[in-house]
Amino acid sequence: MNVYALREGFTDTQSGWLTAVAPYLDMVERKIEQTIASDVPAAYHLSMRLFSAGGKRIRPALAILSALASDGSADTTRLIDFAVATELVHMASLVHDDVVDETSKRRGAPTANSLWGNKISVLGGDFLLSKAFGLLARDVDSEIIRVLSGAAVKMTEGELLQACSEGDFAAWEANYWTIIEGKCAAFMSACCECGAIIAGAQFAARAALAEYGLQIGYAFQITDDLLDITGDPSVTGKETGADLVHGKFTLPVLLACEDAEERRLLIESGRIGITRDKALEVTNRVIACGAAERAANLANECAEKAVAQLACLPDSEFKAGLEGLAGALTGRKV
Amino acid sequence: MNVYALREGFTDTQSGWLTAVAPYLDMVERKIEQTIASDVPAAYHLSMRLFSAGGKRIRPALAILSALASDGSADTTRLIDFAVATELVHMASLVHDDVVDETSKRRGAPTANSLWGNKISVLGGDFLLSKAFGLLARDVDSEIIRVLSGAAVKMTEGELLQACSEGDFAAWEANYWTIIEGKCAAFMSACCECGAIIAGAQFAARAALAEYGLQIGYAFQITDDLLDITGDPSVTGKETGADLVHGKFTLPVLLACEDAEERRLLIESGRIGITRDKALEVTNRVIACGAAERAANLANECAEKAVAQLACLPDSEFKAGLEGLAGALTGRKV
Repeated sequence: MNVYALREGFTDTQSGWLTAVAPYLDMVERKIEQTIASDVPAAYHLSMRLFSAGGKRIRPALAILSALASDGSADTTRLIDFAVATELVHMASLVHDDVVDETSKRRGAPTANSLWGNKISVLGGDFLLSKAFGLLARDVDSEIIRVLSGAAVKMTEGELLQACSEGDFAAWEANYWTIIEGKCAAFMSACCECGAIIAGAQFAARAALAEYGLQIGYAFQITDDLLDITGDPSVTGKETGADLVHGKFTLPVLLACEDAEERRLLIESGRIGITRDKALEVTNRVIACGAAERAANLANECAEKAVAQLACLPDSEFKAGLEGLAGALTGRKV
Repeated sequence: MNVYALREGFTDTQSGWLTAVAPYLDMVERKIEQTIASDVPAAYHLSMRLFSAGGKRIRPALAILSALASDGSADTTRLIDFAVATELVHMASLVHDDVVDETSKRRGAPTANSLWGNKISVLGGDFLLSKAFGLLARDVDSEIIRVLSGAAVKMTEGELLQACSEGDFAAWEANYWTIIEGKCAAFMSACCECGAIIAGAQFAARAALAEYGLQIGYAFQITDDLLDITGDPSVTGKETGADLVHGKFTLPVLLACEDAEERRLLIESGRIGITRDKALEVTNRVIACGAAERAANLANECAEKAVAQLACLPDSEFKAGLEGLAGALTGRKV
C-alpha cells in the first residue's frame, strides 16, 4: 500500500495531514505483513485479506503523529511496533464486529465471515489480538500495554453496551456518549497517549494528547454515525439507514427527537426490525429537521476541542498533521 | 468456590494434588471475581456466569505449582495475578469455542451463546481477553506476556487448523499432534514456564517445567478426546461421539485406522455430517479393536514423560502436586 491508497475517503485538500506521516505508515504496512505471517493457511489468508482490504490506518497515524509531535523523542522501531499493534487490535475488532452484526460486505468487498464463516472469523480475530499483544510485549515499558489493554476493555464494554441497547431508544438516549467513548474514542485516546509515552513526553503533553485522541474519537464516531444518514452509498459502500435497521439510535436521530413531534414520529417508527424503506423515511426527516447538521456541528466542536489541546506542543509538521487529521476526519465522505 | 468444588471430575484418591495448591486457588477465585467486575451488565453477567460455572482451574494450578516447585521463590501477588490471567484467557477461549461450535450446553449448563446469543458471547470473550492482558501488563517482567501471548497465538492457530480440518480424515492424520499442541499443550506449557519465570527459576528448571506442561497438555487433550469415545455422558455432560459428529478425527480413531480393514470401514462411515447412531457404531469399533486403550496408553506415556521432567526439581509438596496432577488428569472421568 502506498500513500495514495491511504487517502481513501479523503479529498486532496484533506489528505495533507498524510505528508508527514506517510513514510512511517509505509513501515507500518510492511511490518503488519511480517507480523501476520503464519504456517496455518486459514490464519494467514484471513489476516492477509483484512490487511489487503486497506483502510485509513487512523490509529497508527494517531500514535505516530502523537509521538513525533510531542516534546520527547521516539525510537522508530518501538513506535512502529506499537502502531502495528493498534491496527491489529482494530482489525480484530472489525472482524468480530462483522460476525456479530452478520455483515456481508465492508468497503464494498465481502467480509471474512461471508467468505469463511463465523468459526474462522472469530478465531481469526483472536489470532490477530494475540499477535497484537505479543508485539506490545516487546516494549520495554509495560505502561504501554496497561494503557492499551485498558482501552481494549473499554472497547468491548462499549460494544457490549451497544449490543444490549439495540432497538431500545431510551437506552441509546442514556448511553450514547458512553457507547461511542467505549467503542471508539477510548482506543483512539490510548493510541495518542501511548505515542506520547513512547516519545518520553512530559506529563502535560501526554495528558493533552490523550484528550486530543478522545475528542478526535468522538468526532470520528459522530461522523461515522452521520454518514449512515447523509452518506452516499456509492461512496461509503454501506446502505443508508443501516444503523436504524439494526436498532442503533445515533446522535442525529437523538437530536431530532429533542423535538416532541419528531420524537413521537421517530420513536414510533424507529424500532428494531424497521424496514429499509421506513429507515430512509426517518433519515430524511432527520436531515430535514436540521438534526443532521447539528450533529455535524457537534462533531466539528469535538474536532476543535481536540486541536485546542495541541497548543502546548511545539510547532512542527507532525503537530500540523494532527491538526489536519482532525479536520479531515470530520469532513470525510467514507 | 472451595477446594471440594475444584475436585470436579476427580476421585478422592486423584484429588490429592489439590492439597498443596488449594489455598492459592482460593485466592485465584477471589481475584477472578474482582477482575471481571464491570459497570456494563452484559460484560459482568456473562463473565460471572462463566466464573460460577466452575471448572478444574488446571491452568492456574499448573502456574502456581510450577512456581512453588521450582528452585526459585515467587511473589504471591504476582503469581496469583498471572494465574488469574491464564484462567481468563481459558474462559475466553471456551466462550468463543462454544460460539464457533454452536454448543448449547457445557458441563450440563446452558452456554453463554445459548443464553445471550453469539453477539454478546463473542464480545464477552474479547472482554475477558482484554482483562487478562491488562492483568499481565502489571507484571514487572515482559517475558511473561511474551511467552503467554505466543502461546495464545499458537492456541488460535491450533483452533483454526482444527476448524479447517473438519471432516477431512487425511488432514487430521497429518495434523493431529500439531492441532492438540496448538489448542491445548502450548498454553499449558506456557503456564508452567511462566510460573518458573515468576519464581526466578534457573534455566534448567524453567525448561523442564515448560516440557512438563507440554506433555501434560498432550495427555490432557488425548484424555479429552478419549472421553468423547469412552466417557459416560451422565458424568461428562457431553454426548458420546460428538467429535465424530463434528468431523473431528481424534487419536483413538486415527489409531483404529492404522488397521487397513478398520480404516476402510471407519473412513467410509466417518465423514462430517455423520449421524449420532453412526458415530456410536464407530466409537464402539474404536473401543473393540483396542484403539481406545492404545490412546489411553499414549496419554499415560505423555504423563510419565511429564513427571520425568520433574527429576531436576527439589522434593516438595508442590513437586508432589505436579506429579499427582499428571496422574489425575489422565485418569479423570470428566
